[in-house]
Amino acid sequence: MRTPRRRTASEQVSAALLDAAETVLDRDGAAAVTVRAVAREAGVAPMGVYNRFSNKDGLLAALALRAFDDLAAAIDVGPDGGPVDRLRRACRGYRRFALSHPARYTLIFAAGSPAADPASPVTVRGREVFAVLVALVGALTLRRGLDPVDAAQAMWNGQHGAVTLELAGVLQTPDAAASFEHTIDALIRGLQAVRP
Amino acid sequence: MRTPRRRTASEQVSAALLDAAETVLDRDGAAAVTVRAVAREAGVAPMGVYNRFSNKDGLLAALALRAFDDLAAAIDVGPDGGPVDRLRRACRGYRRFALSHPARYTLIFAAGSPAADPASPVTVRGREVFAVLVALVGALTLRRGLDPVDAAQAMWNGQHGAVTLELAGVLQTPDAAASFEHTIDALIRGLQAVRP
Repeated sequence: MRTPRRRTASEQVSAALLDAAETVLDRDGAAAVTVRAVAREAGVAPMGVYNRFSNKDGLLAALALRAFDDLAAAIDVGPDGGPVDRLRRACRGYRRFALSHPARYTLIFAAGSPAADPASPVTVRGREVFAVLVALVGALTLRRGLDPVDAAQAMWNGQHGAVTLELAGVLQTPDAAASFEHTIDALIRGLQAVRP
Repeated sequence: MRTPRRRTASEQVSAALLDAAETVLDRDGAAAVTVRAVAREAGVAPMGVYNRFSNKDGLLAALALRAFDDLAAAIDVGPDGGPVDRLRRACRGYRRFALSHPARYTLIFAAGSPAADPASPVTVRGREVFAVLVALVGALTLRRGLDPVDAAQAMWNGQHGAVTLELAGVLQTPDAAASFEHTIDALIRGLQAVRP
């Protein structure tokens, strides 16, 4: 899925180490992703991990880039359908990604995210993935004067709030999927110009 | 502010220990709130903390109850103003609480919250505070068939998403306050019946 061309041996080793790091992340959370833990998981000497990723921050940055790639795939709805339908499907893909990979989701969007560092390539990648949402939201007939970036941030806020409260187990409504739909419905309605 | 009547000596000790626990929480996060750390902060023997709060979970539950009291005060907008204005002011109070006390906010609404345990009194208190939002949202002229509880959950999702992405430093718009307003604006518009 990730790389159509044949990878070099060195790339294969890096990918295998990153797979091991992702296993540690998914199982034990970002705090547990250390050079030592990843080396143990991969069955290599710590130096092998250190040589490629330097330290915990390097590992988390590489994992965050991969998580953004997965998120981009999850919200890719293709060219078919009307603007509202496409946005809705992208939102549902976003929720599926968060629920399937809570540790990866938390890594990129919770406090301590590598994407909070303006100098990080993770931040650049995060902006690219956000641009997908901006394009989807910008295809709506937005209220006069509403910037698509502001509208997309509002959509994101609603989605992020819904899935994080669901993941935390503190929703006040019994049906999390229905609550997510109510949230994106209300936002899509509220961002659009009212048709006369 | 908290208790108008005069407190007993025992209540004063409990309050002082809880103040110490809150200091540890605000400074070092929920993971650091141990019986030992709170005793050290309060300058008492660990047994004094243990006798009142049993363990870390007891401390976190007491802190979460206090945080919900503070949140309830922050979103209390009194009886004046129209429904939209009152809801807006409550939302702004919610954001102020989150930004002023991120560790307390995270304690009650992030993964690991005591409010995720159905048997906890914290969950009961959380439901009471949510009921304030339900009443505020229920005062709007909601779309036909939209339950005020579902509408309030949607409002909460938007607010929670906005403040947690702001706290994490990953917003894609430069003005967090404006982004928050766009989000609650869109939700309020989207939840309401369109006036003919």
